[in-house]
Amino acid sequence: MSQNSIKAWAAASAGDELKPFEYDPGPLAPEQVEIEVTHCGLCHSDLSMLDNEWGVSQYPLVPGHEAVGRVVALGDAAQDKGLSIGQAVGVGWLSGSCMHCNSCLSGDHNLCADNEVTIAGRYGGFADRLRAHWAWAIPLPESLDMASAGPLFCGGVTVFNPIVELDIKPTDRVGVVGIGGLGHLALQFLNAWGCDVTAFTSSEAKREEAMSLGAHHVVTSTDKASLKAVRESLDFILVTANASLDWRQFINALGPKGKLHFVGAVLEPIPVSVFDLLGKQRSVSASPVGSPARLRQMLDFCARHGIEAQVEPFPMSQVNRAVAHLKSGKARYRVVLENT
Amino acid sequence: MSQNSIKAWAAASAGDELKPFEYDPGPLAPEQVEIEVTHCGLCHSDLSMLDNEWGVSQYPLVPGHEAVGRVVALGDAAQDKGLSIGQAVGVGWLSGSCMHCNSCLSGDHNLCADNEVTIAGRYGGFADRLRAHWAWAIPLPESLDMASAGPLFCGGVTVFNPIVELDIKPTDRVGVVGIGGLGHLALQFLNAWGCDVTAFTSSEAKREEAMSLGAHHVVTSTDKASLKAVRESLDFILVTANASLDWRQFINALGPKGKLHFVGAVLEPIPVSVFDLLGKQRSVSASPVGSPARLRQMLDFCARHGIEAQVEPFPMSQVNRAVAHLKSGKARYRVVLENT
Repeated sequence: MSQNSIKAWAAASAGDELKPFEYDPGPLAPEQVEIEVTHCGLCHSDLSMLDNEWGVSQYPLVPGHEAVGRVVALGDAAQDKGLSIGQAVGVGWLSGSCMHCNSCLSGDHNLCADNEVTIAGRYGGFADRLRAHWAWAIPLPESLDMASAGPLFCGGVTVFNPIVELDIKPTDRVGVVGIGGLGHLALQFLNAWGCDVTAFTSSEAKREEAMSLGAHHVVTSTDKASLKAVRESLDFILVTANASLDWRQFINALGPKGKLHFVGAVLEPIPVSVFDLLGKQRSVSASPVGSPARLRQMLDFCARHGIEAQVEPFPMSQVNRAVAHLKSGKARYRVVLENT
Repeated sequence: MSQNSIKAWAAASAGDELKPFEYDPGPLAPEQVEIEVTHCGLCHSDLSMLDNEWGVSQYPLVPGHEAVGRVVALGDAAQDKGLSIGQAVGVGWLSGSCMHCNSCLSGDHNLCADNEVTIAGRYGGFADRLRAHWAWAIPLPESLDMASAGPLFCGGVTVFNPIVELDIKPTDRVGVVGIGGLGHLALQFLNAWGCDVTAFTSSEAKREEAMSLGAHHVVTSTDKASLKAVRESLDFILVTANASLDWRQFINALGPKGKLHFVGAVLEPIPVSVFDLLGKQRSVSASPVGSPARLRQMLDFCARHGIEAQVEPFPMSQVNRAVAHLKSGKARYRVVLENT
């Protein structure tokens, strides 16, 4: 291996433990920047990719797509894009997009059909260095802590983006289903947005925590009577869980023009009754992460409102223990790996 | 029966033929207006209600909820609401709403939970006279023909309303599924809206007609290859059919932020894959008819653009023949009953 090589953690095949893995990234592409990774969040999608749940994984697989670090190199065509050597930046689920399709040119780079997924067909952020297209290396505001900022770049923007895209208003009554890595950020965002916030959780243990994170009400997501009590009362329900719940009850918890929005990868089809949507003009929708401009907007909002992920740090060398901790369901709320 | 009695056509129970039926409407309520019906459209929902398909029918059932006629009486509290004796008005699926709930006060009277359905729990427009709350007796612009205007009040507003509500733009590429009573109006609206319009129909015979109604392209809705050819190309698909189609193919015909919107009463649940929605930020939604303000807006738009329903007139006395004609699938495109 050359001196240029990147030291990472990789799984050799589906379900394997992560092991040290070194690779030569080759010359830096003109539009890319290289980042020395200081911290990288561990997201449920890393587990799905490690286990090839979605059938798109390539091995060796280096997970990690909530990376924060400092710029150490700028490609020839990335010199004048507002980034500088030493600057703190973050990279999320996407590390590139084509920049010339209608979606990219409309500012919806996250919907680009040719986007580059940080951990698919390339190596991710569980490493000492990571590369990304300059547009996807997002400057971190100074007031945000690098140690806890990583999860904002995937989990954070995934829940922040639909609040903007679906035009949620401070006068709205909203719900968040699933209080984990994504949900605990969604509660903070929606509280700061000015909304009346209901947390839906299957875990009684999370009741108090949900309130401290910004929920005004907590409803047990698996209890028919509790769900019935909020019937027709919400304008927006953000589903961060990827469990199979009684979706009809959640649709019926929506008032007029209410929106049920998924950001979790629920694998089983949702049986949607047109009648349930029709009378109240309801909708069911879903969205993926967010664009570079949305990421910047979110970071600015976090800085202004003191919103941050609650993280549990693990040294990068203990990545397998970190994975086991997330799998156990005990993470509160986001595991972050640290390079030392 | 008193001189005040209304002469109508009613079914005595589910599936029965319509027979002459006379009833005493009692004193006119303060907020109501009474209309002498000249014309009344026959809508698929009339058939559904006659057959108690939705389990909410009450008998004797007088169908008819696309009524046009002239105001013959104004209640005490309806004197100063912009209506006058002799004025041409229309009444659609709704003949009243509570006027004081959040939906009504927000201008979304069509989403009122206590709205009054013209043909449920009261008697409809297959009659010589019909009553409605003043807000739901919508003035007909002079340039619109009373003989063909009836279908606008249910079929028309049902397809016009989502174009406004879902913020469809003249730059959008849109589709209309099902070219019947609703669809043939939707094609005209969307063409006048400035959109690129694709008609989806299972009937080859309707191809030419769809083009003459405003479609720029026609796709066979039951042909997999044809549907695949429009993959990811549309911004909005309006489903007016109530058949069960391969909905996944229609979802996948949507481009980024595309919207699949139902206005037909599709009875079987739509199996919605979150993955199909997520990557492109798509949505599935539905809506019922439209508010009084939307009805007025639609009529104004029709008058400006020369949009009208293509109707087949039947004398009111031949209502059973008209019902049989609609059931046969041969109506092009809306049957209208005339009082003589």
